[in-house]
Amino acid sequence: MRIPQGRQRAKRLFSDLDGSVDAVLIVNSRLPFLDDNFRYLTDTIGGVFEGSIAVATPDEVTIITSAMEEKIASGSGCKVMLAKKREDTETLLKASLRGRKVVGVNMSGVSYSAIKWIKRNLKGVRLKDVSEQLNRTRMIKGEEEIARIRKAGIMASKAAGDIPDILEIGMTEKSAAAEVDYLLRSYGADGPAFETIVAFGPAAALPHHRPGNGRLRKGSVALFDFGAAYMNYKSDVTRTFFSKPLDRRMAGIYNIVAEAQEAAIGEIAPGVKAKRIDIAAREVIRKAGYAEYFIHSTGHGLGISEHDPGTIAEKSKDVLKEDMVLTVEPGIYLPGKGGVRIEDDVLVTNKGSQLLTKADRSITAI
Amino acid sequence: MRIPQGRQRAKRLFSDLDGSVDAVLIVNSRLPFLDDNFRYLTDTIGGVFEGSIAVATPDEVTIITSAMEEKIASGSGCKVMLAKKREDTETLLKASLRGRKVVGVNMSGVSYSAIKWIKRNLKGVRLKDVSEQLNRTRMIKGEEEIARIRKAGIMASKAAGDIPDILEIGMTEKSAAAEVDYLLRSYGADGPAFETIVAFGPAAALPHHRPGNGRLRKGSVALFDFGAAYMNYKSDVTRTFFSKPLDRRMAGIYNIVAEAQEAAIGEIAPGVKAKRIDIAAREVIRKAGYAEYFIHSTGHGLGISEHDPGTIAEKSKDVLKEDMVLTVEPGIYLPGKGGVRIEDDVLVTNKGSQLLTKADRSITAI
Repeated sequence: MRIPQGRQRAKRLFSDLDGSVDAVLIVNSRLPFLDDNFRYLTDTIGGVFEGSIAVATPDEVTIITSAMEEKIASGSGCKVMLAKKREDTETLLKASLRGRKVVGVNMSGVSYSAIKWIKRNLKGVRLKDVSEQLNRTRMIKGEEEIARIRKAGIMASKAAGDIPDILEIGMTEKSAAAEVDYLLRSYGADGPAFETIVAFGPAAALPHHRPGNGRLRKGSVALFDFGAAYMNYKSDVTRTFFSKPLDRRMAGIYNIVAEAQEAAIGEIAPGVKAKRIDIAAREVIRKAGYAEYFIHSTGHGLGISEHDPGTIAEKSKDVLKEDMVLTVEPGIYLPGKGGVRIEDDVLVTNKGSQLLTKADRSITAI
Repeated sequence: MRIPQGRQRAKRLFSDLDGSVDAVLIVNSRLPFLDDNFRYLTDTIGGVFEGSIAVATPDEVTIITSAMEEKIASGSGCKVMLAKKREDTETLLKASLRGRKVVGVNMSGVSYSAIKWIKRNLKGVRLKDVSEQLNRTRMIKGEEEIARIRKAGIMASKAAGDIPDILEIGMTEKSAAAEVDYLLRSYGADGPAFETIVAFGPAAALPHHRPGNGRLRKGSVALFDFGAAYMNYKSDVTRTFFSKPLDRRMAGIYNIVAEAQEAAIGEIAPGVKAKRIDIAAREVIRKAGYAEYFIHSTGHGLGISEHDPGTIAEKSKDVLKEDMVLTVEPGIYLPGKGGVRIEDDVLVTNKGSQLLTKADRSITAI
């Protein structure tokens, strides 16, 4: 029998927790305060699960939820307890944790009010913060997780490859974003991994620009940052294109960013400190004289969340391990002028690294 | 001078708070733990604002953020404090709250760890939970908020009107969802308000089904639940269509749900208890013999979040007031067979209500 994904992940988590807790409790509040560890430990596909609870033990994952989500909960292979009324949740929570003395909670992903509610309902149980441990376990991806991110990476790469064909002078950022999201689904994505960023011209100087009514002009940059969502997992890719005539300065910046990314990816291997990767990218950009225009860290973990645990940053304390998946995304942003970012998803392998996104990175002008 | 939206909303909040706090502090953690009250009180358009902070006082809203989000923060009209390093955030937080004795926080939207961090950094300051007050203030929409939701409603209505034209036998749920999202943007949306739901046939029995590879067959239902995002605000519409030959039983259910929705909307007026609206819908469905198949509440608030404060449920304690915006969305779900939901967005006016979504609700078979 195939062991459900959620249970496999719970097993990994408890192996890392090394007997320090008897169960792990994940509490979803109302939107937007849903803990992505709920998805991680249940592997429910679809549903919203507001107000739902996951209880993981080394052998089982239980979902406490409403009739509205029941079928999807069952489909995950988890045990399901049905709360018909809100009060039922409290009774079922107690029942699911009967005899457990130390219960792990994600103190960084549960609201202060929810912790108070848990304490009221679990008298005599000791709560232990396992947020760091959840992060560490989630950083190392299982086989199925990697397979899904890989698929999401292929979908995003294909969409990226099509962008030069859809891009035309005069089109708005919004319509370009609509095309990208459409392409992602046409390649099998459940949808976009996050709000697709399209930034033309000066707007590309804002790393998190929301696509608006700005139109693509001649001699401009066109930055696309997007990803595919696939069975709860995500890819995250950025490509920066040009419209002719090629802006010489921006083209020069493109080459620097590409070189920085290559240097960073070249450093990736198990045992390497994550901050080394950041430094590798930053050094290339610094030497080219643009240090102050690289205004974010080099990358982050990728998985269920578009910002999964793990950071490639100057102050990161993470050390790379086999089966981590990270983004590598240096950028240079010139206020009022534009910006360039190039981003790919990288799997840490036993010897080095493997690119999960393979869209063309050579300079492209339409 | 036009007063920035964020400051206007902060003014309303402090008027409701009636002098009980000197400032309100909203703390964003890492994705997905971003408090939507940050958007509410800053009205920043775009950006992500992980790790950013909003400090609202009766006269001003201050954003503490990184260089990456600086430009978008400034565009909101808020005061911006730039944290170059992580430690700066703590220093700036103290500076922004200097002399404040009682600070309101959203205990339901901030993590336990973040509260501990705040307490460490704001010694001598008393924290007060203002989550309920934030909810109450947010329930009553301002003029600009209503205007944006109205626009989002029009966009979603237009997309809903186009669905019969795009729907065809053999198409997958995923491709239908791609079409809907494309339509939304073509009508001016910033993007979909949430993950668009498309459910064909038996899948329509799951209120939160994620579109998959299921294909539309003849004699089926096709449920679409989606909305438009527009300048941080959202609409939320559900329409259930049919493919020919019309399934008689499902068509009968459609008429019951439509009647239930009409009954519910007919009750909406200022001063009415929200639970009355739920009961009105539930009564129609109960009389038709489907009580146990209406497995969720009748509606919820709508605004910045697709599930804004406010519920139309049997146990809701809310009382309707002018300028609230709510969804009304009864449904009947037959496990293994399919389901019907009809959802519209309603503004409470001074006398009764006004529909913000106007897509055709008559039974439609393609």
